[in-house]
Amino acid sequence: MTATTSWVPADAKGDFTIHNLPFGIFSTGSDAPRPGVRIGDSIVDLKALSSDPAAAKLKTIQGAAASFAQPTLNAFAESGRAAHREVRAELQAILGEGGDALLKSNDALKQKVLVPASQAKMHLPMQIGDYTDFYAGYNHAFKVGVLFRGPDNALQPNYTHIPVGYHGRSSSIVVSGTPIQRPRGQILTNPTAPVKEPITSACKRLDYELELGCFISRSTKMGDAVDVNEADEYIFGYVLLNDWSARDIQAWEYVPLGPFNGKNFGTTISPWIVTGDALEPFRAEALENKTKIQPYLQESQKKNVYDIKLQITINTDGKTDGNIISETSAKNLLWSFPQMVAHHTYGGCNLRAGDFLGSGTISGTELKERGSLLEMTEGGKQDFEIGQGKVRRFLEDGDSVVMYGYCEKDGVRVGFGDCEGSILPAKAL
Amino acid sequence: MTATTSWVPADAKGDFTIHNLPFGIFSTGSDAPRPGVRIGDSIVDLKALSSDPAAAKLKTIQGAAASFAQPTLNAFAESGRAAHREVRAELQAILGEGGDALLKSNDALKQKVLVPASQAKMHLPMQIGDYTDFYAGYNHAFKVGVLFRGPDNALQPNYTHIPVGYHGRSSSIVVSGTPIQRPRGQILTNPTAPVKEPITSACKRLDYELELGCFISRSTKMGDAVDVNEADEYIFGYVLLNDWSARDIQAWEYVPLGPFNGKNFGTTISPWIVTGDALEPFRAEALENKTKIQPYLQESQKKNVYDIKLQITINTDGKTDGNIISETSAKNLLWSFPQMVAHHTYGGCNLRAGDFLGSGTISGTELKERGSLLEMTEGGKQDFEIGQGKVRRFLEDGDSVVMYGYCEKDGVRVGFGDCEGSILPAKAL
Repeated sequence: MTATTSWVPADAKGDFTIHNLPFGIFSTGSDAPRPGVRIGDSIVDLKALSSDPAAAKLKTIQGAAASFAQPTLNAFAESGRAAHREVRAELQAILGEGGDALLKSNDALKQKVLVPASQAKMHLPMQIGDYTDFYAGYNHAFKVGVLFRGPDNALQPNYTHIPVGYHGRSSSIVVSGTPIQRPRGQILTNPTAPVKEPITSACKRLDYELELGCFISRSTKMGDAVDVNEADEYIFGYVLLNDWSARDIQAWEYVPLGPFNGKNFGTTISPWIVTGDALEPFRAEALENKTKIQPYLQESQKKNVYDIKLQITINTDGKTDGNIISETSAKNLLWSFPQMVAHHTYGGCNLRAGDFLGSGTISGTELKERGSLLEMTEGGKQDFEIGQGKVRRFLEDGDSVVMYGYCEKDGVRVGFGDCEGSILPAKAL
Repeated sequence: MTATTSWVPADAKGDFTIHNLPFGIFSTGSDAPRPGVRIGDSIVDLKALSSDPAAAKLKTIQGAAASFAQPTLNAFAESGRAAHREVRAELQAILGEGGDALLKSNDALKQKVLVPASQAKMHLPMQIGDYTDFYAGYNHAFKVGVLFRGPDNALQPNYTHIPVGYHGRSSSIVVSGTPIQRPRGQILTNPTAPVKEPITSACKRLDYELELGCFISRSTKMGDAVDVNEADEYIFGYVLLNDWSARDIQAWEYVPLGPFNGKNFGTTISPWIVTGDALEPFRAEALENKTKIQPYLQESQKKNVYDIKLQITINTDGKTDGNIISETSAKNLLWSFPQMVAHHTYGGCNLRAGDFLGSGTISGTELKERGSLLEMTEGGKQDFEIGQGKVRRFLEDGDSVVMYGYCEKDGVRVGFGDCEGSILPAKAL
């Protein structure tokens, strides 16, 4: 891997270097949302580029013109990983310092195709069919299990055999920057009382969950299964994910069928889909699973996850200079995304392009490596310092939670941009 | 309510009388799927009718021509309940004996607009966004609870306070007549052993679940809640639902996040959406809930469910003359669909037109009123006679499960048609 640079201004220490080139959906002014690729502080307008005769020699990009005229990336995702790879290669050739001058030397084309990111509004990158959230962050699952059931029964017997997951709510997935209204719901104020009498209340234990998510690019037929060693070909790319959680609502509702209103009021994702090809140099091994797993989950690729550094900041009172309160790595997973895909389809469930999978909360083992406040405050029993002289047990109205993610190695950096959401007060009862 | 008849041949004892007029999506030959309304053995082609100048005086139908040119009913559903009602009224006027002769006396129009149902292929009626499955069938929840936990702990403390539900899988919802492949997955062959060692196997405990489902017609904004007394206005109509269940896969996977591969391999619905207006004469009271429920769930309409007779047949070896093995009523719910809608949105989760809600398994209290084999066989421990001299504990390959549903009162009948699926052998391991 050699670090290269772009003639388009792009901080080599920023998220959007020429090594990244993530895909997203943006709009400017009253123009319709359309696909773009991020480079530095600019967006390459793929709709404009793919339809301009001056760029005729970018054969894969121009061949994808119909997909790039869509308001989502679903059609382009379905064109397959080879096409995604080729589009990135064609872009790297015209964006790289010393590369093809097709764009660099054509001011009219540059004017048309390079959009300042500051002028763009970002949208959900894909039309999401189903959303599945897994529970593959071992350290999170263990810590939460200890809090709820003690260390001897922290993990269920199935945890190391199955990438445990559940179906989430796709309608309320929103893009970074969308405010989240504090949910209301039924909560138990005295959970240890012999008779359980809930009240209706605004959520008092509102939390975030730091996750990595992936978008599916290839549809499968009902009844078919994806081989774990081919599953990477079904993944379009990755985003950061904040699985907002109302701990009190969830605690009362979740037995026996799992989380519902405790989760479905909102889920935030970062807007740029970082491809597996961009992340390839940052492969790492997942956490060791000492259990002998079933053959359909056994991977030949040992480096089955990515060493993405993940960070969390909470900004209060409209400020934007919060401290990093937590830092961990996306390699803290017991199960890889290919294993999740293989398990999801093994029984015959079909996937569709645009389906979205979450990893589950990613935490390290130490206090400041935790992916949720629940873990950092021992279930809301201790204050946690978030900087600026403030402490939290759970989120307050006005808090803005920002998640960051990036990989860095040999001078090459690839990042995700912000995954941000701020808390609006609950609706009146 | 007075029984009336149609000049289009329609058995007064059949499901599709002039009192029903359910909406669906059908195709013929190589023509594209399009909206239709069922009457007797015929389908009224709404695309053809709404665009034909000869039917210009059917103002609501012709005003909906753009919606009726779509391959799903989503756009028409979004037009609102008043429009759905008016379209049914316009159809009743031209289909009723002694009504407007606009269609009856126009052979060319009849030829174009009335399609024999036997020549039509049915499709999913709506593009489904999210699918939520509730657990509102009290008798089922109680019986299954007794089987798993004994009578003293059969129901969780939340059960009578919350319409408990979970997010299901929308990609694998299929229309009646689509075969279902037996799923594979991890199962525990010796669940009581101290060390839990699963094997990978074809499902050995495959079951059906009899449910009623509803389609949402109106989208809501994130953060907004639907008032329980206005929720009927958000429901387009109802279908039968078979929530196929792999009991062994589900048992091993479902703690702590709920059912996943045990359910997501397939869900079958009947093709015709029966409107609330058609079901209105058959309103009934839900099961009594002695718990004092939270204000947001309290309904002013006491007759909050429908007395729909529900029946199940299992046909074997390609035969179609199976006995009715179970018969119950859709009034056996503790929670109504309006309560489900109110609860679903109370925390801020948004609904979209095309979202689908299931009731949960509907059972009566007696053996031959049960909505799943699990209940009829005491968890697979006893044979149950399905007729033709055969018994089952769970489903075998080749079994065809047919669910029926209809209301009948004062000589008026409204029904759902078949909800059928047959079991294909599992894929090899």
